[in-house]
Amino acid sequence: MTFDRVCVIGAGSIGSLCAGHLGRVADVSVLVRRPEHAAELNADGLTVSGKSDFTVPVAATTQADQLDPPGLIIIATKAMQVENAAAAIEGRFPDATVMTIQNGLGTEEVVAARGEWPIVSAVTFMSGTKESDSHVHYELDTATWMGPFHPSGTSFEVAQAIGDLFVEGGLKVEVLPDLRPAQWSKLIFNASVNPVAALTDLPHVGLFARRDRPTDLGHLMFDLIEEGKRVATAAGVELFEDPWEMNSRAVQQGSTHDDDYAHVPSMLADVRAGRRTEIDFILGSLVREAQRHGVPAPLSEGLYRLVKARDRSYDD
Amino acid sequence: MTFDRVCVIGAGSIGSLCAGHLGRVADVSVLVRRPEHAAELNADGLTVSGKSDFTVPVAATTQADQLDPPGLIIIATKAMQVENAAAAIEGRFPDATVMTIQNGLGTEEVVAARGEWPIVSAVTFMSGTKESDSHVHYELDTATWMGPFHPSGTSFEVAQAIGDLFVEGGLKVEVLPDLRPAQWSKLIFNASVNPVAALTDLPHVGLFARRDRPTDLGHLMFDLIEEGKRVATAAGVELFEDPWEMNSRAVQQGSTHDDDYAHVPSMLADVRAGRRTEIDFILGSLVREAQRHGVPAPLSEGLYRLVKARDRSYDD
Repeated sequence: MTFDRVCVIGAGSIGSLCAGHLGRVADVSVLVRRPEHAAELNADGLTVSGKSDFTVPVAATTQADQLDPPGLIIIATKAMQVENAAAAIEGRFPDATVMTIQNGLGTEEVVAARGEWPIVSAVTFMSGTKESDSHVHYELDTATWMGPFHPSGTSFEVAQAIGDLFVEGGLKVEVLPDLRPAQWSKLIFNASVNPVAALTDLPHVGLFARRDRPTDLGHLMFDLIEEGKRVATAAGVELFEDPWEMNSRAVQQGSTHDDDYAHVPSMLADVRAGRRTEIDFILGSLVREAQRHGVPAPLSEGLYRLVKARDRSYDD
Repeated sequence: MTFDRVCVIGAGSIGSLCAGHLGRVADVSVLVRRPEHAAELNADGLTVSGKSDFTVPVAATTQADQLDPPGLIIIATKAMQVENAAAAIEGRFPDATVMTIQNGLGTEEVVAARGEWPIVSAVTFMSGTKESDSHVHYELDTATWMGPFHPSGTSFEVAQAIGDLFVEGGLKVEVLPDLRPAQWSKLIFNASVNPVAALTDLPHVGLFARRDRPTDLGHLMFDLIEEGKRVATAAGVELFEDPWEMNSRAVQQGSTHDDDYAHVPSMLADVRAGRRTEIDFILGSLVREAQRHGVPAPLSEGLYRLVKARDRSYDD
């Protein structure tokens, strides 16, 4: 099984990294919202710098009905735009496989409600910065984890084939028979790092793992992660990786980086740019799972309310 | 008992409001840190606008040994500068009464460690904005609460005499036989409103009291205040006023104000200005009391760590 024709929906940093790398080994189209974004991609192609370094042609459009039917559709929008993305392909491309690659939980269900496609779940740890509409800087070349979304009847082989394509394109991948343990590990990691960064205006620095003094931020991170782990246990999920270890390792890697690099978590970037955050899909989904399973999660609830207030998402 | 000569240490907004109003009915000197601040006050006097409207002469200096011995010394610095203020008057003015007027708990003890003066405790709800070194705009003309600090052997009459002076000067006052119930009410109020404002970048708006939806910020405020009330009970303090009522009333007053007024709590003003906050004396002192009495206060601890990280006070 191979995918010769891929459509990426959403060309933010993750969508651009996917489209760029896959564009080296497949015929890639990109579905975006803004006509000038599509025009620039069609004129200049898509450039990736940093950990990779190349330019590839891509066929960009704002109209789903102008797409050549793709074998693989990657929905790489922010979580709150998945609904629109799935609506745009509803009733089309019956032979396609759809992959979701958002933070948090629940975007597969949003897609499944719009069509019968086999769905592959993915979470990614790579990161990049958009330099322009046609240029993404590839920063962290860490792995993307993917696996079949079982309620849609997807086979492991399909996920494996997508993984192979990513690897051929130059990305790092781990294909798993069940993504939930990995998805929840990333969820709990994200549900602590992102809100704490957004509220403190700090990038993901060593302080996030420091627990020397009673007031050190690492205690709060640890306590938040403990709440998340209790929710995972109640939900019957055995974690793929301990989120506290992920946190400690990430800040260690940050501190040994060449140029005082400290990762700016996406939620902090959103707050700084005055954009609405993905809090409802990240910490919000964890809080809802806690309530569903009757697990007390006072810190998660408190930080959820703070970020909702900070990003003014109450106004919507 | 009357006080003809008053020295105010610290001429931020609260110190300036005290010095200005008392300057109408007493001989007022001001002890400040910056020579140019003293020079401007000596040249121009101190102007109060807003709820009051006048200019009075004040004698300003940066040297405690240049002060005419005052009968009343009001320490109106931020909480973390009380140590320096008390050190400046150590060994001087044996006949003076000292009044502290900070947020939080514990500044009376800092003063008591430096001398045998009778001490009066005060907390204030008035607020103002410094327009310049010699001009303060008087915004909220709410009361200042004061009462004897009993460990220093102060009589109620002394507190009453200071209260009378404030009233003569045009300020609102409530004199109480024991300030602790009022101080703790204000502490718990401040320990919730200030950190939440600093972390959300929101002034004290209606959202702080709203509890319609599960994600509404009022729930967090309520839960924080409940933690504070449990600590007060464990510390044997019966509150003067319910902090949740104080919160609800304050945002209501804000929302009915003429010109979309919303109070910017001092901790938010500090964060916005890149100044270190008083978090250690406000939420920090509540967290320490919780630990001392074995009361769980996970939300207070979590927010304490967040604000410590946000105002970079870890760096010190």
